[in-house]
Amino acid sequence: MVSKSTSKPIGVIGAGSFGTAIANILAEKNQQILLYVRTAEKALQIEKIRESAGQTLHENIEIINDLSRIGNECDVIFPMVPSANFREMMRSLSPFLRPYHIMIHGTKGFDYNAPEKFHPTPTNPLTREHIRTMSEVIQEESSVVRVGCLAGPNLAREIAEKKPAATVVASQFDEVIKIGQKLLRTDRFLIYGSTDLIGIELCGILKNIIAVGAGTIAGLGLGENSKSLFISRGLVEMVHIGKALGGNAEAFLGLAGVGDLIATCSSELSRNFTVGRRLANGETIDEIMESMEEVAEGIKTINIIQDLSKTYKTRVPIAETLYKILHGDMTVEDAHGYLMKFPFRAEIDFM
Amino acid sequence: MVSKSTSKPIGVIGAGSFGTAIANILAEKNQQILLYVRTAEKALQIEKIRESAGQTLHENIEIINDLSRIGNECDVIFPMVPSANFREMMRSLSPFLRPYHIMIHGTKGFDYNAPEKFHPTPTNPLTREHIRTMSEVIQEESSVVRVGCLAGPNLAREIAEKKPAATVVASQFDEVIKIGQKLLRTDRFLIYGSTDLIGIELCGILKNIIAVGAGTIAGLGLGENSKSLFISRGLVEMVHIGKALGGNAEAFLGLAGVGDLIATCSSELSRNFTVGRRLANGETIDEIMESMEEVAEGIKTINIIQDLSKTYKTRVPIAETLYKILHGDMTVEDAHGYLMKFPFRAEIDFM
Repeated sequence: MVSKSTSKPIGVIGAGSFGTAIANILAEKNQQILLYVRTAEKALQIEKIRESAGQTLHENIEIINDLSRIGNECDVIFPMVPSANFREMMRSLSPFLRPYHIMIHGTKGFDYNAPEKFHPTPTNPLTREHIRTMSEVIQEESSVVRVGCLAGPNLAREIAEKKPAATVVASQFDEVIKIGQKLLRTDRFLIYGSTDLIGIELCGILKNIIAVGAGTIAGLGLGENSKSLFISRGLVEMVHIGKALGGNAEAFLGLAGVGDLIATCSSELSRNFTVGRRLANGETIDEIMESMEEVAEGIKTINIIQDLSKTYKTRVPIAETLYKILHGDMTVEDAHGYLMKFPFRAEIDFM
Repeated sequence: MVSKSTSKPIGVIGAGSFGTAIANILAEKNQQILLYVRTAEKALQIEKIRESAGQTLHENIEIINDLSRIGNECDVIFPMVPSANFREMMRSLSPFLRPYHIMIHGTKGFDYNAPEKFHPTPTNPLTREHIRTMSEVIQEESSVVRVGCLAGPNLAREIAEKKPAATVVASQFDEVIKIGQKLLRTDRFLIYGSTDLIGIELCGILKNIIAVGAGTIAGLGLGENSKSLFISRGLVEMVHIGKALGGNAEAFLGLAGVGDLIATCSSELSRNFTVGRRLANGETIDEIMESMEEVAEGIKTINIIQDLSKTYKTRVPIAETLYKILHGDMTVEDAHGYLMKFPFRAEIDFM
């Protein structure tokens, strides 16, 4: 059933698992979707088999390799590329963007905007100025004003299998929330709204840290009691660092916060959770990352948060412990022993 | 390693799965535990095989069938019996209790103190006066002043398997929290403290409603996205009804709230989750309850909350929907269709 809800095509940038899932949802409801793929070779291959990231493409999706068509033909654009490629993509797209464009991204990582070869020290620390969310990158690199993001418990494989789910569209502009809802809402995909754009972006980014940790607990076979304890502590850590970086506590208690956190910490379908599980099984982070098809954003985020927490004097015992594991300074077993000995204190003090 | 942390034995009332697990933890650290079992026959049987609820008993545990010994010999008592038997047990125990006794219970259900044959109507509604938490029952039925409760992600089987876990001891008395911590803390069992006794009791009670619902989602095979959405909404519903019944929002965001909620919604080891899963598979509630060895507190709680929500004009779409399922007025499939169509609104508005 194709509704004529928009006369222009909708743009999706990036045909990874989440980008493809969102493109398919959009295609179900809307006439034409342009799905941009970065390399011509990959675009040809996807077009040939009409499949990307294991998902069959809806007939309303046109695979393209020309970024100018996204800007020139679409009013509403969903960028869904890894954080490491986001700014570069925006710089290429920017000449084709105008203030009337609306961009709603689904990227759950930070842009690391520090000068090359920047090594933070106590006198020259990493600050929020060096770190950007994707909505900030969009605004820095283009004339687009009306930006938003998607975040929530959205394991792409389940969405592709047409299982029910919900997401949050966050934007300072009600118009963006309403358009996101109109384009994406189906009878199995609920869309909530939030005006705390930075808070909701931070939820999606920070929860990946906790997912890596939860994966290590699963890998050690410590059980649901331990994992739930870990997630509870993780939620508190997310709120503390999230507030230091400009989000409000409320965001973390909703669907994009605790909801996404639970899904990501409960499923082998989560890349970050899988990284943790494999770390617990004795693989090194280099081995794991080499073998993964898509990026696990949590690894980069752990490194960034470890540095930022020093600047903002925020305690992040989980991120710090995972940092040590990633850099070979602590074993997964010792890390959990350490967390179980962590001083007794009431951790819910953010309200 | 037996420490002489107390010269008197510690009492545990009830040898169900959680009572036995707590008795074993106490026995590891303390010289003597009196574990009360209600019937002489059952006590003999447990004593004979030195095993209860599938758990081998620590050698420091003495099985008894004489409630007077609990009162006369113990200063600190852990009542761990189903809510339906709690008041009756307290009435039998009360003659042996004095104001110096400390009671920390682990029961996660309401006492239903309405007159027999009471049928709530709009003009004669069920109120908070008819509903008691176990700490309130203790205070009503005895001279004990220093009461507390245990709540958190504490699947008994995992504790019995010596997997790490944490719990919350809640009491208005710091002394009770400190004693609970001293008696229970091991290197694999962390004890947090809270002074919001009613809030923490409500966490343990209300989360069982959501666990039944999460079980239905698992039974329908709807996936982690759906379950996480459901848990997020459930958390909000818990906060709303919990505040109406005298708890503070903070409790629900900590280990005994969201932590216990996650564990209970993630494991076949949870009785309430299992009830939901079996409902989704087409069994009736009568069939399910008949076949269970221990009570699933969530069923009684759903009925109570459905009535209380009318009195306090609090929206409880999840409890209401489960109530309809339990009473044959809605199928599990229709219920989830209904919840997915629920009006769009930001549900995080309790802070």
